[in-house]
Amino acid sequence: MQQELQLPSNPPRPPAAEPTTPGTVRPGTVRPGGRTARTRAAVRDAVLSGLVEHGYPGLTVEYVAEHSGVHKTTLYRRWSSVEGLVADALDMAGEDSWTPPDTGSLEGDLRALAQEVVDTFGDPAAGAAPTAFIAAAFQSEQAADALRGFYAGRFARCAPLVERAVARGELPAGTDAGSLARAVSAPLFFRLFITREPLDGTAAGQAAGAALAAARAGVFASPA
Amino acid sequence: MQQELQLPSNPPRPPAAEPTTPGTVRPGTVRPGGRTARTRAAVRDAVLSGLVEHGYPGLTVEYVAEHSGVHKTTLYRRWSSVEGLVADALDMAGEDSWTPPDTGSLEGDLRALAQEVVDTFGDPAAGAAPTAFIAAAFQSEQAADALRGFYAGRFARCAPLVERAVARGELPAGTDAGSLARAVSAPLFFRLFITREPLDGTAAGQAAGAALAAARAGVFASPA
Repeated sequence: MQQELQLPSNPPRPPAAEPTTPGTVRPGTVRPGGRTARTRAAVRDAVLSGLVEHGYPGLTVEYVAEHSGVHKTTLYRRWSSVEGLVADALDMAGEDSWTPPDTGSLEGDLRALAQEVVDTFGDPAAGAAPTAFIAAAFQSEQAADALRGFYAGRFARCAPLVERAVARGELPAGTDAGSLARAVSAPLFFRLFITREPLDGTAAGQAAGAALAAARAGVFASPA
Repeated sequence: MQQELQLPSNPPRPPAAEPTTPGTVRPGTVRPGGRTARTRAAVRDAVLSGLVEHGYPGLTVEYVAEHSGVHKTTLYRRWSSVEGLVADALDMAGEDSWTPPDTGSLEGDLRALAQEVVDTFGDPAAGAAPTAFIAAAFQSEQAADALRGFYAGRFARCAPLVERAVARGELPAGTDAGSLARAVSAPLFFRLFITREPLDGTAAGQAAGAALAAARAGVFASPA
């Protein structure tokens, strides 16, 4: 099972109870109770495919209308702009049920976290959407805000991983889960998107090992 | 004095002996000995200002011609395309005389390295060009290759920093300088360009402290 630390795979599956096929969702044609969620998912899918296909500079409301089956007027009324569409797609990405690994040891958990990043970006289909979001944030302040919110949510969910490690005596009490989770991810994203170097198991192992050593040394302990 | 780990400040100053003002450099109007370097610097300056002003998607050979005073035909003949222009500007950025800090202690050196990143990106003028290059690499494979080469050169220059620390008994012999330098920079670039969080002295101190703890624990030691 692949749980990504950064962003869900692309395209995210619409909820099974509410199948969403491009072109099938039009305001007024489905029962009111499911319409909003279904429309939003269809729009999100179209935003993701547009970002992956054309990048943020090439994404248009027209493209999203065509590929979601949602009328342009509706898109403008609810999302205002391409920026609003991208930000909402990111907000939806953060509404998943991701939880951090629980392997029984801190080292195992950190290695699993690092491996999730390697697996996601080693798979072109899974890596395309998160890559497109990260690129969009260079050009849209609203996308950057949404990305910040997405990661804040992810890091907050890592608290139980640290609580378990503290309870097992593997980490100093007061270790900040967000700092530790950032430390595992940072070297991998740095290689992917800054230095443009390949990722592999060695890089993942070193990222986990470095974060572990720093955490044990108390570098991520909050001031008392 | 601000020495950046990542990219020289923008706009880089042309060599004092060969002043380059947009519009003054035209093939055939200057002595042959200085023409190539001067033309290249003028073109590089125009590429940087275009990237900062319009981003990679908006950069055109026409813009570079207009702002460098170099004829479009010359640009196409020597650089082939916008991609070639961006890649060469990055290559020039790597031809500076940057050397890593030498403060007398490993901890001081790593803190100074981290602070260079904070200082560069805390200064909009200094941070604009490196940010534009990093963004361009999302859209151009040739820019990504040039960025990879730029950072490889930077990390290679960090070898003396590690040699000094090993000689002082601060690090295990065989510590890989590139891995250590990446570890210092990664958390800061991660905040800047992935999680879009603010950078400050605390983040710099934690990045240096984590890299130091990991290096002392032998995480960056090459296999014997």
